[in-house]
Amino acid sequence: MTDRLLVVGGDAAGMTAAMQVRRRRPERDIVVLERGRWTSYSACGIPYVVGGVVDDIDDLVARDPATFGRDHDIDVRLGHEARAIDLDAREVEAWDEAEGRTVRVGFDQLHLATGALPLRPDLPGLDLPFVHGVQTLGDAARLLDQIDARTCRRVVVVGGGYIGLEMAESFVERGAEVTLLDGGDHVMPTLDADVAGPLVPTMEGIGIRVRLGTPVEAVEKAGGEEPGGTVVAGGDRYDADLVVLGMGVVPNGDLAEAAGLATGVKGAIRVDRRQRTSADGVWAAGDCCESFHRVAQVPVHIALGTVANKQGRVAGVNLAGGHASFPGVVGTAVTKVCGTEIGRTGLSEREADRYGFTHVTATVEGTTRAGYFPGAEKLALKALAEVGSRRLIGAQIVGGQGAARRIDVVAVALTAGLTVDDVVELDLGYAPPFGSVWEPLHVVARQLGRALDDQGP
Amino acid sequence: MTDRLLVVGGDAAGMTAAMQVRRRRPERDIVVLERGRWTSYSACGIPYVVGGVVDDIDDLVARDPATFGRDHDIDVRLGHEARAIDLDAREVEAWDEAEGRTVRVGFDQLHLATGALPLRPDLPGLDLPFVHGVQTLGDAARLLDQIDARTCRRVVVVGGGYIGLEMAESFVERGAEVTLLDGGDHVMPTLDADVAGPLVPTMEGIGIRVRLGTPVEAVEKAGGEEPGGTVVAGGDRYDADLVVLGMGVVPNGDLAEAAGLATGVKGAIRVDRRQRTSADGVWAAGDCCESFHRVAQVPVHIALGTVANKQGRVAGVNLAGGHASFPGVVGTAVTKVCGTEIGRTGLSEREADRYGFTHVTATVEGTTRAGYFPGAEKLALKALAEVGSRRLIGAQIVGGQGAARRIDVVAVALTAGLTVDDVVELDLGYAPPFGSVWEPLHVVARQLGRALDDQGP
Repeated sequence: MTDRLLVVGGDAAGMTAAMQVRRRRPERDIVVLERGRWTSYSACGIPYVVGGVVDDIDDLVARDPATFGRDHDIDVRLGHEARAIDLDAREVEAWDEAEGRTVRVGFDQLHLATGALPLRPDLPGLDLPFVHGVQTLGDAARLLDQIDARTCRRVVVVGGGYIGLEMAESFVERGAEVTLLDGGDHVMPTLDADVAGPLVPTMEGIGIRVRLGTPVEAVEKAGGEEPGGTVVAGGDRYDADLVVLGMGVVPNGDLAEAAGLATGVKGAIRVDRRQRTSADGVWAAGDCCESFHRVAQVPVHIALGTVANKQGRVAGVNLAGGHASFPGVVGTAVTKVCGTEIGRTGLSEREADRYGFTHVTATVEGTTRAGYFPGAEKLALKALAEVGSRRLIGAQIVGGQGAARRIDVVAVALTAGLTVDDVVELDLGYAPPFGSVWEPLHVVARQLGRALDDQGP
Repeated sequence: MTDRLLVVGGDAAGMTAAMQVRRRRPERDIVVLERGRWTSYSACGIPYVVGGVVDDIDDLVARDPATFGRDHDIDVRLGHEARAIDLDAREVEAWDEAEGRTVRVGFDQLHLATGALPLRPDLPGLDLPFVHGVQTLGDAARLLDQIDARTCRRVVVVGGGYIGLEMAESFVERGAEVTLLDGGDHVMPTLDADVAGPLVPTMEGIGIRVRLGTPVEAVEKAGGEEPGGTVVAGGDRYDADLVVLGMGVVPNGDLAEAAGLATGVKGAIRVDRRQRTSADGVWAAGDCCESFHRVAQVPVHIALGTVANKQGRVAGVNLAGGHASFPGVVGTAVTKVCGTEIGRTGLSEREADRYGFTHVTATVEGTTRAGYFPGAEKLALKALAEVGSRRLIGAQIVGGQGAARRIDVVAVALTAGLTVDDVVELDLGYAPPFGSVWEPLHVVARQLGRALDDQGP
């Protein structure tokens, strides 16, 4: 019986937990199994390295494996892919790539931080080598190799989620001809169609060819020695040296499920407020597990670095014998595409319908600075409120510089359960370089209030 | 007996109320007395017109008097300065400047929106004609006249509040030699000294001469026909073609006080949640009246356009027979000086002490974008939490582009009474163009939590 904390996965959710335990338990034996070559990196930064906005892949690494070993006495084993958990024997079986053999590593406590995998629908050809997911620094390195080798003149991005959009822009910056295919009626499915609509001309403006209502049917390899191939979608054919998947991700929960751990939404590992799984002494955090949605009040799967870090910290405090709990998410996300800032939090209309919220919506336009101030750019804010409770339940914003971070204000309002009437009176900062005296949020809350009044008591 | 709403003051707090009444009561007789030439303007924009960042003084006007008359049937009487209120006769006595006579205007309901006046200490020479306050568009027009006449080569700004700092920068942009004098130990008295300290080298970097610990003693006129004169301060003499007051403002409540209305902090008109004064049928809003501070739980005087607009709206709804209440402020303010963004909300250390909050503080440094992302600029965030309740009670931020608006997140947290433990888990947006995965607010909240733990139960 060992007194070891074994962590599976060396990115945010894993290493944040490991570091919490190290700080609180200086003598604890901590081992980390990481299948790749990197630890503690910003996966969200990958599109910017691919696009050349950030120079070096190593810029994305917060702490490298050597640092963990040298400065924090954490034994990080790279190139080790966990393949099975033996709960009875308290061992994990892993494939040691360098040695080409299976090893077994014992644990007292186990922390699962296995992340997510790019969604790869079961269609012909989606496993071809020129079809790339974008999830790890390993993925980034492979794409950079192709850019360096100048073998990606024509890029097809499959899926219009935020990774798809960011990658499409990145390859335009590298001089590629980029086509983005999506089976839905709008890009950014976490936004409502009316909010996301204006993004398409913006993307087209920098040269991205956007094809909506164009579901991918297959990917075919080119004949002979030719690299790349063809994407068949919506009845048309799109030649591609490189295909990038941007259809979202699924939790990497197979390992946990095979060991009999309870799983939930999309197969994500089920955890309680303290990040405990259903098995004694086994914890999980990050993209591989569920989160509680504080507005919808249901478990959800949201794979974002910010959530992974928070859950990792909570798991670490608890693993070290302390007490912390993760109260959940409200669905906040921000990104920037082709110079347009995008933010969303809470429930979209589709989500509100799905979760049973009778709601009203309002959309207002505003500016990022006072209208008369040089550099003022347009923004549009859409918000939803629940009939009855009068609570704000979601918002989406699209606009120029300074637009996206405004969504954080709504995120806190959702966390606190504020009504639209509360929001009208929020004491937000005002000065001409930052906005108008009535923030768009104030204006939209007033409109929502009137819409709720019209619904009657 | 007339059924008239009489509004005294034609800027935000007055006209917002008038418009609310007009929308709800299309037939109501509404008269506005305004001593100046403009209505509904952005006083916060004055420094930018003076500095030439905004081209035209009329850009600051949201609605001009003619528009109110033509489109909204609101009778705006410019050049009318209210001088007395006769509550028994239900009349206001006003000086009609154009006609050079006193007029009496009857009312059924009276709404006072008389604003604030620049603080002008009782020192020799502070009433000399080259000593300018900055409060109305009339003040702005007078400063622009001097800029056009090129009679302001040497400018002395007295007082390092936000108007003082903004005006100092504006005159530098006009090519003037600018000296800023302040009797205190730091500029921006609404910030703590440690947060405000770095602003001085920033100001000096654009050529502003800053003299702290230098209280003004007198202003003396130059001899003979010479324009301008000399500011005597801290034992030294500073020649000035133009002196700008930036020592803050006082509520313009004399009219109300003379009529026997209750006044409070700094002589501001006392109002209830519905903006009712102590006299029947008399209402007030904006810089002339008090606000309730939701964190300190005391009445305060905060003269800001954003508060004036909200109070004006609430007064207007109530004046029209509806129901609205103003729950108060949390002390949020933002500004930008010499390229540095500044935000504050809640209580500073000095305020926390004054209002009896036992508190801990923490300060963290961060960046406006991910550290590896091009264009990332530094920011510093200081925050305060109350011992016992563990509530966040205030924050101050200084930094590059994108820093100031972050204070809004804290403002909502204060409004909702969130603890530092709540704040650690706030689901704020993250993407590399907008910040780090742990926002400075998360980090400072964790530090505050540890500081509170150290205080014991």
